Amino acid sequence: MAALLEGGKLHKYGPVQGDPELREILSGVIAEEIGVRYAPPEIAITVGVKSGLDILVRVLLEPGENVGIMTPFWVTYPESVKIAHGIPCFLEADEDLRPNLEKLRREIEAKNIKALLYSSPCNPSGVVYTRDELEEIAKVAKEKDIWVISDEIYAKFVFDGRKHESILSIGGLRDNAILVDGPSKRFGVPGWRLGYVAGPREVIKGLTKLQGHVNSGTSRPAQYAMRVAYTSQKAREATDNMRQRYERNRDIFVRGLNEIDDVSCTRPEGAFYAFPNIKNFLGYKYEFDGRKYTINSSVDFRNFLLRKAQVAGVEGAPFGMDSHIRFSLATEEENIVKALSNISHAIKELRSR
Amino acid sequence: MAALLEGGKLHKYGPVQGDPELREILSGVIAEEIGVRYAPPEIAITVGVKSGLDILVRVLLEPGENVGIMTPFWVTYPESVKIAHGIPCFLEADEDLRPNLEKLRREIEAKNIKALLYSSPCNPSGVVYTRDELEEIAKVAKEKDIWVISDEIYAKFVFDGRKHESILSIGGLRDNAILVDGPSKRFGVPGWRLGYVAGPREVIKGLTKLQGHVNSGTSRPAQYAMRVAYTSQKAREATDNMRQRYERNRDIFVRGLNEIDDVSCTRPEGAFYAFPNIKNFLGYKYEFDGRKYTINSSVDFRNFLLRKAQVAGVEGAPFGMDSHIRFSLATEEENIVKALSNISHAIKELRSR
Repeated sequence: MAALLEGGKLHKYGPVQGDPELREILSGVIAEEIGVRYAPPEIAITVGVKSGLDILVRVLLEPGENVGIMTPFWVTYPESVKIAHGIPCFLEADEDLRPNLEKLRREIEAKNIKALLYSSPCNPSGVVYTRDELEEIAKVAKEKDIWVISDEIYAKFVFDGRKHESILSIGGLRDNAILVDGPSKRFGVPGWRLGYVAGPREVIKGLTKLQGHVNSGTSRPAQYAMRVAYTSQKAREATDNMRQRYERNRDIFVRGLNEIDDVSCTRPEGAFYAFPNIKNFLGYKYEFDGRKYTINSSVDFRNFLLRKAQVAGVEGAPFGMDSHIRFSLATEEENIVKALSNISHAIKELRSR
Repeated sequence: MAALLEGGKLHKYGPVQGDPELREILSGVIAEEIGVRYAPPEIAITVGVKSGLDILVRVLLEPGENVGIMTPFWVTYPESVKIAHGIPCFLEADEDLRPNLEKLRREIEAKNIKALLYSSPCNPSGVVYTRDELEEIAKVAKEKDIWVISDEIYAKFVFDGRKHESILSIGGLRDNAILVDGPSKRFGVPGWRLGYVAGPREVIKGLTKLQGHVNSGTSRPAQYAMRVAYTSQKAREATDNMRQRYERNRDIFVRGLNEIDDVSCTRPEGAFYAFPNIKNFLGYKYEFDGRKYTINSSVDFRNFLLRKAQVAGVEGAPFGMDSHIRFSLATEEENIVKALSNISHAIKELRSR
């Protein structure tokens, strides 16, 4: 790190849109992984996907405009929209957490929706949109001429030998689709605070202009590290190892969860979360440390697991589903096995009361 | 940089408010330089001063509220305010570019101003607010209970043996004053994209909450480098050398500018810019490359200097004064001498036509 203090161009202001060599590399990454070519001027480096979204919605929205958000959703989506004085419109999923495309069409037709926002693979559900689903979404988006913001940060974590599909590759949607992605998940480096946005040149131009006032772009030493990461064979192998580990953990954990009475968990097809339905435990009571508790929400269920199973989940409410809880699979197999055993015992005790 | 890829905690998410050890160091820096103690919870690390301002104004303002901006101003101030759907109110300076405190009071009384924004040392004018001026501003701010956002990014560059004074050190203003600063100028590292905000605990709490949604905080490797810089004796000496160099350049350049007929430049007391008045050249005509040009604005004068003197200035218009032009003093003495000679010749030719 001392070298950073001694001099060199990474100290000085860089281009607000991000290092051109990095954007050239990302242009190749997008072509390889999604199958479409976005030129460097159609790509901007942002302070994580979060800042990409924050700036993007401010560029695309006028105050008071509606943004459709596929439920369940990453917690930041509605916040980004609200901070930009937009209005989040939640688009409910099917029972199995897949996008409900009929509802989607109805809502888009009923409300004046300006943009649609989702992640696939989905955080928190692990659902990976199929080519058919994406084509249906693309069709509606094209008909109604709305923006589609596709968060593909978990693209490298798709299981069962399936291929990640992106809406950007669907013909005719180039003027409407915007990709957000970054190195945080695939290389395990969220602390670098880097992401990127790819889309129509005019959108990237607007985003860059606003980024010039909002933060002048991202940290250059981190951008340099990002170049190294995206061109490293070793980093690529590490990502692949992570995917294999998450997939094994998914197999063990989700099978185990579904063996527990009254728990049901759809099988995640990607990302690294399990998102079981725990609505059957609402109303249950338990004791801890001499006090009595009733489970009335996903937060209460999270606290129950923390207290009685020493397992940390995240309540489903901020993801738009208070009937669910999210567990991370990004850990060692032994932790997965132990957590499963603890959850199973805690729930057995809960049900027996 | 390879070490960043191998593992270690700088890869993971850090606290949104910034590294606690860094905030502890900055608490000491503020105490030493300004003479008041801000505890680590009263400090947040931001993606440069720009993102600090962007988030701060979104925390402090409701859409449609007024922000007083001392003219001339850093180009980003009005943009930050407008992006947050606030309304910039420009507070004109005196002839000598010093804050006009009577006008300030009148404007604040006439309009419902929510916050006041300025830099001292000032970019672009080099004016350094005196203790008396700050006390007068503090008095009005306290009476009207408005926020004062004090941008002190050039604090280490105050000339003629004077001491930098901060409004944060004025008794009774602790609940109203907010500091923005960072390592970019003092260590010459704007490419790291780091800054910090210090102020009332509730403001920093609000800023941190919003930062959690807007960008999750700043790049951790850069924060680590910032810790090193702020505790390095070598970096401190480098800053002092820069100040001496800028002061020498100021002496040569500003004396030289004032010797040119029809140019007048107030003597910068800090920062590293000269901001001469060039209104006497409006209406002048010149030829370049077979074409005829007339100077009707600061942009035209900038282009005249680029073409006829090979000197790059920045037009005063985006700083709020179309009668002026900004030159940077952050260069080698020989460039200063050469620029002066070129400007002098170009203007002599212009006036002789």
